[in-house]
Amino acid sequence: MNKKLSVKLNCPLPKLDFDVITMGHGSGGLLTHRLLESGVFDLLKNEHLDQQHDGAYLELNGKHAFSTDSFVISPIFFRGGNIGELAVNGTVNDLAMCGAIPKFLSLSFIIEEGLRMEDFWEILLGIKTASEKAGVKIVTGDTKVVERGKGDQIFINTTGIGLIHSKANIHYSRIKPGDKIIVSGKVATHGIAIMSQRNGLEFETTIESDTTNLNHLVKKILDEHGDQIHFLRDPTRGGVATVMNELAGFAKLGIRPYPE
Amino acid sequence: MNKKLSVKLNCPLPKLDFDVITMGHGSGGLLTHRLLESGVFDLLKNEHLDQQHDGAYLELNGKHAFSTDSFVISPIFFRGGNIGELAVNGTVNDLAMCGAIPKFLSLSFIIEEGLRMEDFWEILLGIKTASEKAGVKIVTGDTKVVERGKGDQIFINTTGIGLIHSKANIHYSRIKPGDKIIVSGKVATHGIAIMSQRNGLEFETTIESDTTNLNHLVKKILDEHGDQIHFLRDPTRGGVATVMNELAGFAKLGIRPYPE
Repeated sequence: MNKKLSVKLNCPLPKLDFDVITMGHGSGGLLTHRLLESGVFDLLKNEHLDQQHDGAYLELNGKHAFSTDSFVISPIFFRGGNIGELAVNGTVNDLAMCGAIPKFLSLSFIIEEGLRMEDFWEILLGIKTASEKAGVKIVTGDTKVVERGKGDQIFINTTGIGLIHSKANIHYSRIKPGDKIIVSGKVATHGIAIMSQRNGLEFETTIESDTTNLNHLVKKILDEHGDQIHFLRDPTRGGVATVMNELAGFAKLGIRPYPE
Repeated sequence: MNKKLSVKLNCPLPKLDFDVITMGHGSGGLLTHRLLESGVFDLLKNEHLDQQHDGAYLELNGKHAFSTDSFVISPIFFRGGNIGELAVNGTVNDLAMCGAIPKFLSLSFIIEEGLRMEDFWEILLGIKTASEKAGVKIVTGDTKVVERGKGDQIFINTTGIGLIHSKANIHYSRIKPGDKIIVSGKVATHGIAIMSQRNGLEFETTIESDTTNLNHLVKKILDEHGDQIHFLRDPTRGGVATVMNELAGFAKLGIRPYPE
């Protein structure tokens, strides 16, 4: 594990009277409040994150995208990031792929009893860093704890709302013969980074995952090229190969690599 | 288990070439598509549920509530309902407690490898029934599968968007001395129903849980009494006792049972 890379640890773990998360922290009672008030709310605070209610109040006007994703990765810390950053970037990117400007996220934890508070804190820092970088606000959340052996350290669901870019018109039905597919990053790095850590594989160079937010890039493309962009997709499970397969399926077209 | 009570089984399980959910069904590839297209999309379909994109498109105008909840209950089938109905009603009710009219839900599954397709189907029917009853639409979703022993049959996250009722003004800061607390249902039934099934307790009468949607009730109260309603809360974990405790804490007031 190379946790140092994932976040700048400029917010030290607050002093707490527990080192690991226990079933009581998910009870909805006193320990849950103590956990949330220990620093979670402070870390993620913004004008919408109401600490006392079942949901957030948002003024929303216009056409929006709405997207959800649960993150169940192992290991939860990997070269180049952690599950917290991934959970923010994943939903931010799904919204961006709809042609939206991501605005608000909900954040829901399913924690396995025994997770070290130090690890949870580092994941929270990852969430804070990633959400600030993407310019989205965490506005509502939920924390559940499951018994040891009924989970896998931590699962995170993020669900997001984004405002559709005024020039966006993204739909698979717009894919046409002659369209060019632009791949914006290196293929397969995230998959290989995770797989090599899971299975203890070593390569001559260090392979780092590329978890990052793409929303600013997408906004720039849409600002400049508007509806010349027919379709967007963020390759996740299955990688670029799965995306190409889906594209070919939607469009009933073949795909030719370039340069040949 | 008394599954018959939970839903009307008027939609038979489609013929499939698998009986249990396997890791491949969460891969994002061919098996995921086959699972979703086997009936999930058909069962939950509406004009917003786009099967081909990373998110749903929604026209939203005005003040909204946004709320998330992950459901991690055991057993997943209980007297009076199943985890699917609970996942819909839980978020519907959280939105209603914000003074909102629930409109749209996202739905995210974390399934433990080996879940019987028959059970998954019954949970989906519970989701369909509950969302129709509450008048909310499932518009986007996600399915992940974790290895056996890394989950607990099925976890469900629902995240919802609701439009704030024009007469609603719900906030704990509005609680005043002399306010009356109205309890709309029987106290402790859900907790006792679950606990008795978990631990094999028997009572002289059958105790059924009361999972239901409260949004229509709340709308009626707000239509008629508007901002005379200062605060709303749906007791979940910790039950009525936890809610009373929180209320007393917010308001710095005591609570007197009535009639004395």
